[in-house]
Amino acid sequence: MKRVTMGHGAGGELMHELLSHHIIPFLPQFTVDVPLRSFDDSAVVDDIVFTTDGHTVKPLFFPGGDIGSLAVCGTINDISVMGAQPLALAQSIILEEGLEIGVLERAMKSVGQYSELAGVPVVTGDTKVMESGALDKMVITTSAVGKRSRFLDHDLEVANEYRPVSSRWLTDDNIREGDVIIASGTMGDHGIALLSFREGYGFETEVKSDIAPLNRLVEDVLRVGGAVSMKDPTRGGFANAINEWSSKSGIGIEIDEAAVPVAEPVRNACELLGLDPLSVGNEGKMIIGVVPEMADEVLKVLHRSPLGKNAAIVGKATSKFDCVVLRTEVGGHRILEAPVGDPVPRIC
Amino acid sequence: MKRVTMGHGAGGELMHELLSHHIIPFLPQFTVDVPLRSFDDSAVVDDIVFTTDGHTVKPLFFPGGDIGSLAVCGTINDISVMGAQPLALAQSIILEEGLEIGVLERAMKSVGQYSELAGVPVVTGDTKVMESGALDKMVITTSAVGKRSRFLDHDLEVANEYRPVSSRWLTDDNIREGDVIIASGTMGDHGIALLSFREGYGFETEVKSDIAPLNRLVEDVLRVGGAVSMKDPTRGGFANAINEWSSKSGIGIEIDEAAVPVAEPVRNACELLGLDPLSVGNEGKMIIGVVPEMADEVLKVLHRSPLGKNAAIVGKATSKFDCVVLRTEVGGHRILEAPVGDPVPRIC
Repeated sequence: MKRVTMGHGAGGELMHELLSHHIIPFLPQFTVDVPLRSFDDSAVVDDIVFTTDGHTVKPLFFPGGDIGSLAVCGTINDISVMGAQPLALAQSIILEEGLEIGVLERAMKSVGQYSELAGVPVVTGDTKVMESGALDKMVITTSAVGKRSRFLDHDLEVANEYRPVSSRWLTDDNIREGDVIIASGTMGDHGIALLSFREGYGFETEVKSDIAPLNRLVEDVLRVGGAVSMKDPTRGGFANAINEWSSKSGIGIEIDEAAVPVAEPVRNACELLGLDPLSVGNEGKMIIGVVPEMADEVLKVLHRSPLGKNAAIVGKATSKFDCVVLRTEVGGHRILEAPVGDPVPRIC
Repeated sequence: MKRVTMGHGAGGELMHELLSHHIIPFLPQFTVDVPLRSFDDSAVVDDIVFTTDGHTVKPLFFPGGDIGSLAVCGTINDISVMGAQPLALAQSIILEEGLEIGVLERAMKSVGQYSELAGVPVVTGDTKVMESGALDKMVITTSAVGKRSRFLDHDLEVANEYRPVSSRWLTDDNIREGDVIIASGTMGDHGIALLSFREGYGFETEVKSDIAPLNRLVEDVLRVGGAVSMKDPTRGGFANAINEWSSKSGIGIEIDEAAVPVAEPVRNACELLGLDPLSVGNEGKMIIGVVPEMADEVLKVLHRSPLGKNAAIVGKATSKFDCVVLRTEVGGHRILEAPVGDPVPRIC
């Protein structure tokens, strides 16, 4: 491997390889609650939850969202799924010389609306400009800090009534035998909306991005209790996220393919394009690992929110397998592998 | 104004205008200790000090530094000059498809070395790739979180023995009549090293970038006490930083031009190129506002460090003026204005 390819930024195995071999080995190790090497949604240091995301989405505006809403929600969700509440955002904007100021303003309006909606302020920022031709229009990197949710202790205590829970956070390595896997809604909407709009496939009239801030929905779930892991399946989609749980928790996960919510037009688009909706990215969904005794209660609270109305139990952890196995709609079994990379480039 | 220009990212008046008219008005206001609207080095929210910086430096490697050392030090310094200690860094890397992996590794090696040197870990990150031609090689956005320095209360108490100090942090609005202004070293090295190397002017054999993490030097000063403001004069250099203090603190500042340390080759290069070294960016320097009674003590501790060996008292706050006035080397007075933008593009 000598040069960077698009796949190195697509969230799957290739990116993992880039990080593991060409970035992480050069960085000194320090003792941190949830460190870089855990590859989790956020880091935790001195009980501060901290994350960052570069947004290179193309095009800047698309059905259901834009770079502004994406830059707010993507980062808020990474904080939230640790079991934390986002406190503040930092926004670094890099602009191409010659970009219309109106384009910047339109994106900033969206940042403002979603910041208001989520109740999380942008508190600091940075602005740089690169020469015309040195950058495709605009990128925004958003970082966020969060603090432990006031409901997380309760959530973990509830889970602990049924089986021992050692982690203080909702990390990827908390899944145990029998835990139930819930998807908070339909999978693949964001990637398909973006791809279809960009390439003019025509599905964009029916499919919109699911971009949404999940911080309040996460709080609702924590108040019920029993959740042990949460993750937002962005690049590489459900398949990537669930494989991270399986490998980091060291347990097999069986997924019932028919139970995974996929919107009809997304399914149709994926069939036509030869894509697996489970490998396509989302921006307003999460998967939740929950002790089996609390699964129905968690599902109930998800169904009460517009953001969780299509939530479904999609599988469970089982030591029968040591990887992720899909029980297909025709009754067979196949391994659901982590994608090499998200099949749709520059979705976020 | 209809389109983005290079000046909008150059840290001076033009950037301020872009922020004030086209970004900030769209963002909702929340109550925060040190908010976005204060345009300070970092924000403070729930006693977490938080900052972000996009690094678009060109070229990626230059005399005295590279994008990796810059990405670590620039952000650490923004946290430190608030009177805080940086706890952790987040690193968002955006790469151009086709970039040699060796270039990335060389930058990451530098990130690792400076992270180790400063004692601040990279705890989380993100990696994206844009198509060949959509980005000039690589940009890195670094964010950092910090906590109140354990010496900041002592520092402010010492200052408070001589005159009332109301702020809890070393913000830009703390300068009062009689406060002494110290520059921690020579001004303009970074911008001139970069410009000369990029354009092949030949000064790069003598001038190296001053990139350095200032967190330990800041602690040394706070232990002495009496500092009320600190700032790292990056884009727009000393002239920009000192004008921010004057306007936000609402007091004039008189600067003795002959006292401001400028290295001989930087002075020569600036004369040849028609640049003012006071408007050129630095990456390992700070200016310090200190109560007059403690100025000599602060200077003494600066001189003990290699990073502060050229530190000098360069001026004082005075209500005789309502802006920044330079007492020139020939004995006249002129207003030192904030530059429209740093004269050297893409220095950081």
